[in-house]
Amino acid sequence: MYDCIVIGGGPAGLAATIYFARQKLKLLVITKEVGGQTLLSSDVENYLGFHLIDGLHLVENFKAHLKDYEKDFELKEGERVTSVEKMKGGFSVVTDKGTYETKTILVATGEKHRELGVPGEKEFYGRGVTYCATCDAPLFKDKEVIVVGGGNSAMESSLFLEKYAAKIVILTINDALKGDGVLMKKVQASEKISVLANAKTTKVLGDAFVTGMEYETKEGEKKVMKAQGVFIEIGLVPVSDFIDIVKKSKQGEIEVNIKNETSVPGIWAAGDVTTVTEKQIAVAVGEGSKASLGIIKHLQQRDE
Amino acid sequence: MYDCIVIGGGPAGLAATIYFARQKLKLLVITKEVGGQTLLSSDVENYLGFHLIDGLHLVENFKAHLKDYEKDFELKEGERVTSVEKMKGGFSVVTDKGTYETKTILVATGEKHRELGVPGEKEFYGRGVTYCATCDAPLFKDKEVIVVGGGNSAMESSLFLEKYAAKIVILTINDALKGDGVLMKKVQASEKISVLANAKTTKVLGDAFVTGMEYETKEGEKKVMKAQGVFIEIGLVPVSDFIDIVKKSKQGEIEVNIKNETSVPGIWAAGDVTTVTEKQIAVAVGEGSKASLGIIKHLQQRDE
Repeated sequence: MYDCIVIGGGPAGLAATIYFARQKLKLLVITKEVGGQTLLSSDVENYLGFHLIDGLHLVENFKAHLKDYEKDFELKEGERVTSVEKMKGGFSVVTDKGTYETKTILVATGEKHRELGVPGEKEFYGRGVTYCATCDAPLFKDKEVIVVGGGNSAMESSLFLEKYAAKIVILTINDALKGDGVLMKKVQASEKISVLANAKTTKVLGDAFVTGMEYETKEGEKKVMKAQGVFIEIGLVPVSDFIDIVKKSKQGEIEVNIKNETSVPGIWAAGDVTTVTEKQIAVAVGEGSKASLGIIKHLQQRDE
Repeated sequence: MYDCIVIGGGPAGLAATIYFARQKLKLLVITKEVGGQTLLSSDVENYLGFHLIDGLHLVENFKAHLKDYEKDFELKEGERVTSVEKMKGGFSVVTDKGTYETKTILVATGEKHRELGVPGEKEFYGRGVTYCATCDAPLFKDKEVIVVGGGNSAMESSLFLEKYAAKIVILTINDALKGDGVLMKKVQASEKISVLANAKTTKVLGDAFVTGMEYETKEGEKKVMKAQGVFIEIGLVPVSDFIDIVKKSKQGEIEVNIKNETSVPGIWAAGDVTTVTEKQIAVAVGEGSKASLGIIKHLQQRDE
């Protein structure tokens, strides 16, 4: 039986792992990918001590730090947790590859991109449909692309795409874009970017590859816009489907108190997957560190 | 009137400053010293992304990061806040050098070393009495020193002093040392370090410089121990005396909720000065970031 299983390898999970590893606990970290969403960040300017670094390089720093303790924890990368159940003395964590028993759990699975849920979206994923401008923009050099969304993410992605794509249309269901003033100005000033408001995406069109998008106007009229790429930027949802035993918000965020305890004794949560309002690397690192120290105290008091 | 005054320049205050500065607010940072307690840390192993760095170098990284935004905030270093009062539309912050008005406040003053409160302690401070082994140990090369305290700080300081001092006596009021098992073993194994238990410090003795310590045994007998240095390591207290209008714990920690709001709307607090259980750099950075984002939202909603 493990002392703790950390589910998730983003900033919250990794910060916790550093604290745990120094305590010589029996520790397992299960993650889809070490680094998590940070890998997708173009510029990180807000994590104290690192001025202007991209997500990839920041994660390299995280990995170098973890390397000091590599003998002090087990890592299952590429494994996906499918359920968590209570058992005598702890919990059983089931993944797509095995089952593990543990005294405590730290959930730090973060968020993932929200899907539109329209026909063609899943079919053309990886064939023109993407959720990550910083990852995939270079693939759309001199192409015409649609960015679906009406907020900061949509604007940031469009401005990032500007360096590559020939033409960018931001398609929003709202009356206008909403968000950061500086971004709005940059979008307005761009010759490549235009905005189509009051447009509800209804279908991704394509054959071998994306060819365009079907949308509905305010008046209920169906129209088609041609494009070789579709960037979906309509926000994020917490990755918490695999765990039912803890209390969650309507949005699926795991409810935590100031000590990062969930509604179930023995389970902590930290970072973007929780009800913490600010989804930020610096905050996730702090929350993960806090949670791990709480777990360490709890294990000391269990005294077994 | 400032949008926000950050009181304190440790990890919590600096992390907040980075977030604020990018928002182009009218911002003032008041601090005794940029870096705060981090400056006194010998090894920092727990702040994700930096593997094994000393406090001084970590603060250099913080300063380099702040330098990107130096035009975006005012800094009063070496100034000490003496009181905070409510006024129309915000608060008035009084220091030993002036008075400043602000819409919001972030208190991030951290903790300072607890004093013994015995005769001679103040008199010989800087003349043999010190609260910082990592800062002052080299001054006591080949000398005999007393470390007052019974926990991890006392043990860590003694082990740090081992490289310099000829002889180290840990003087504790308790029956035995309490703390980390690894530290206990190292202290026991040391030929230079001995422990005197059940000893209550009553007076620091000296002439131009410290000459020893008077203490009381369990039986009430007064004794004298010779020493050229006295390191006081009896824990930390929050720096919160200057602010009376917020709710504090018995220990003087400022009470905060999960959003780092205090009992007074318009005043936030973050880091070691608050009721957050874990006094850690990584946690302080997270809390400071969280607080600043809350303040930024609050200012946007004030809309003036």
